Amino acid sequence: MTSTATPVNNGVNVEALLGARTALTEAPAAAQFNWRATCEWRNGTHSTTIVDDFFGLGEEQKHRTTYSFDVDHPEIFASEDNGATPVEYVLVGLAGCLTAGVAAVAQLREIQLNSVAATVEGAMDVRGILGMDTDVRNGFSSIKVSYKIDADATPDEIKALVAQSQKRSAVYDIITNPTDVRVEVV
Amino acid sequence: MTSTATPVNNGVNVEALLGARTALTEAPAAAQFNWRATCEWRNGTHSTTIVDDFFGLGEEQKHRTTYSFDVDHPEIFASEDNGATPVEYVLVGLAGCLTAGVAAVAQLREIQLNSVAATVEGAMDVRGILGMDTDVRNGFSSIKVSYKIDADATPDEIKALVAQSQKRSAVYDIITNPTDVRVEVV
Repeated sequence: MTSTATPVNNGVNVEALLGARTALTEAPAAAQFNWRATCEWRNGTHSTTIVDDFFGLGEEQKHRTTYSFDVDHPEIFASEDNGATPVEYVLVGLAGCLTAGVAAVAQLREIQLNSVAATVEGAMDVRGILGMDTDVRNGFSSIKVSYKIDADATPDEIKALVAQSQKRSAVYDIITNPTDVRVEVV
Repeated sequence: MTSTATPVNNGVNVEALLGARTALTEAPAAAQFNWRATCEWRNGTHSTTIVDDFFGLGEEQKHRTTYSFDVDHPEIFASEDNGATPVEYVLVGLAGCLTAGVAAVAQLREIQLNSVAATVEGAMDVRGILGMDTDVRNGFSSIKVSYKIDADATPDEIKALVAQSQKRSAVYDIITNPTDVRVEVV
């Protein structure tokens, strides 16, 4: 591989991220975010959820556009399969979180990425959600993520990118550690 | 409210679900599912994840169609906001999971649902993901789900629906309890 003068560009604005760190050190209240989703039941196991606004940097924020997601169960569960299943949405979040992290860390470490692909697999014993065996949990028994990365770096440097992304990933943390969830009827 | 002879119909095929329980009691190996997502990095923090096939009931299964999801960070993080954020996808999964459960439990209990809406909010201190303070976690500090349900039932019956859905929810379990996640580079 020949070295060139072309600067590494993974499309991540590292200067802005480092600037945000400085700004939030001076104003930690701005670091308090609130992410939201609004769900409406359609029929059967089918619902539509909107992601639109959130709170952060001390004020209400809006996405560039409104994102809408259909969630459903598959036909083999006697549903209509009008959307991905709830647990698949969690895998989408995990894949997107770790992959964004790989790009950001690569940019910080001046490693040019050429391609990044990941497969995520979540094993589940559905006797849990069907209430057949209280010893079987409802969620995944385990999750495996496999990365295939082409980058201008050594295999060890590439492994270190993924490890660092994992260390700073919000969704990896959400899945591997417990979070308090309060559900109420208003 | 006048009582009618119209059977309760929330669009959930309870007979099929009860049939599945019987079938899986006889063949527990068929209850072992594998849910999948395949992610490809685009540029910066933007990636696209495909949900297409999964394994269950002892064989490969396919969704009715291929679902594709763009994941990105918002513009205030110096990203292009080409999709919802990874953590918002987790909220979408939680909302869809609990809502499908409310419909299924209502059908089992012969409660007619008229409308079900939920708002989900996840609080997060972004100093965690920015690596500014190791005492701050990367994920949500807490999540609040608020349901507004119109159903032919008493307020207590409606609260009990939501409580039972929570008890059998895969995504609620994934978020509130730890799951083993293995990340590898191949």
